[in-house]
Amino acid sequence: MAGEAGGARAAVIAVDWGTSSLRVYRLDSSGRILQTRASDHGILGVAPGQFPRVLDEQIGDWNETPIVMSGMVGSRQGWKEAPYVQCPAGFDEIAARLVEVREDAWIVPGLSCRDSAGVPDVMRGEETQILGCGAEGTLCLPGTHSKWAEVRNGRIERFSTFMTGEVYAVLRQHSILGRMMEEGKPDAGAFADGVKRSGEAGGTLHHLFGVRTRGLMGELGATASTSYLSGILIGHELRAQGAREFSVLGTAELASLYQRAAALLGMNARLLDPDAGVRALARLGAMLA
Amino acid sequence: MAGEAGGARAAVIAVDWGTSSLRVYRLDSSGRILQTRASDHGILGVAPGQFPRVLDEQIGDWNETPIVMSGMVGSRQGWKEAPYVQCPAGFDEIAARLVEVREDAWIVPGLSCRDSAGVPDVMRGEETQILGCGAEGTLCLPGTHSKWAEVRNGRIERFSTFMTGEVYAVLRQHSILGRMMEEGKPDAGAFADGVKRSGEAGGTLHHLFGVRTRGLMGELGATASTSYLSGILIGHELRAQGAREFSVLGTAELASLYQRAAALLGMNARLLDPDAGVRALARLGAMLA
Repeated sequence: MAGEAGGARAAVIAVDWGTSSLRVYRLDSSGRILQTRASDHGILGVAPGQFPRVLDEQIGDWNETPIVMSGMVGSRQGWKEAPYVQCPAGFDEIAARLVEVREDAWIVPGLSCRDSAGVPDVMRGEETQILGCGAEGTLCLPGTHSKWAEVRNGRIERFSTFMTGEVYAVLRQHSILGRMMEEGKPDAGAFADGVKRSGEAGGTLHHLFGVRTRGLMGELGATASTSYLSGILIGHELRAQGAREFSVLGTAELASLYQRAAALLGMNARLLDPDAGVRALARLGAMLA
Repeated sequence: MAGEAGGARAAVIAVDWGTSSLRVYRLDSSGRILQTRASDHGILGVAPGQFPRVLDEQIGDWNETPIVMSGMVGSRQGWKEAPYVQCPAGFDEIAARLVEVREDAWIVPGLSCRDSAGVPDVMRGEETQILGCGAEGTLCLPGTHSKWAEVRNGRIERFSTFMTGEVYAVLRQHSILGRMMEEGKPDAGAFADGVKRSGEAGGTLHHLFGVRTRGLMGELGATASTSYLSGILIGHELRAQGAREFSVLGTAELASLYQRAAALLGMNARLLDPDAGVRALARLGAMLA
């Protein structure tokens, strides 16, 4: 056992195993991170039956238990499907439904809920971050599939998902909009124009075409157009969600984009520590011990 | 000269030259189609300088003039850029701005306008169909980039574009939604559910994720999910556009989808002949003669 970080006894190995990446954390009993390792062995690249081997290679000589895993590793395409826990749900409901995959390792189940029209929604992995950060009220986790959660008294009451990040990516990579775009420095003015645009007449599908026409007419440069597109989509997400006050839990760059968009719309967004998920896994591990 | 269709003197060769296809029509002086040929030599597959050769191969032994071309052939990536004519515009404004590319051939310019927020919009090719059909009021041309035009007294007063068809295609082919989809018979019930969904809380980006979650929960089959996605997007387009009465100019399958969506939303949609564009090119040819 290496013990590079001071020899404190690691109480938990926390694992964030998503679609495209695998991150493992060795934690002491207070939840402090002693060591961490990341790889691109997301679940989409792991063959059925190979999950135990990939995990063991990743944790190497760490031999603490329990191992507590969250994310898409608990989906139908993962190690073992961990059935969704229905909202409202907090630590107790989740701890009661951990799925044991071997004698030292558990998977945290995702959450499900239904919106006001009865359409289902799901999350896997974000519940760990949300509960780990300890914040209450409206929380936004921007990303490929942005999540908005309502948290009261330590429980996630309901949430909804927006495909903002994925729509941005497929339009950039595969639509006519991407043909006129170039990588470059984000353009704050074009982003603000996009956020403003999201409130004008015509709706999302019309506003998207304006990315092309403003480019054609020479009103928008090839790098600015990516920021304009981002502003349109994030603006539509924030307007549809509608909370005037919320907390953002995400990577620095994305979280600050959401904070700027919120300010432009007269909303107040507070940034939280995106590494909160590890603390929740430590706490779940302690509940297992 | 072949004259297979009866030997009537063809007054015009009409050309619909788009991004991915090339259609040529030999017309008599009354606008009746004598012969037609189609190929996949859209402008994206034609090297600069090769447009005259590709056209001549397509029209073969037809030797009538003038040749009147509409569509993306007049774009920056086409044979020669035909600058947009600003709305309002009808036959007279367009005829005055035809672009001669050789002594027997002209390109019909596209149209531009600005929406209520000042954002530009453009069309190339649809102006020919709209003027050719002779209808007045609100016209919808569904497709990759759906066009909605207001026509009064034979002139297109303004129009707006929705990226509905392209967003549908990129989500099916490149997003997580497509992974759960299978080709199959259109599902009218799922389509109607999607149209209804477009009016519920949460907005486009949230409704899209519901395609995935309803599939995950076993509420939506792999073929039905394509119809549900289509209903969501077309529903959002119709609601954002907002006209209670309109005419649809499109291929039979797509036009009838729009008509059904309209009926579900209490709107009244009338179907028009989608081949109207040829008549407009014949009329422009006669104005040249």
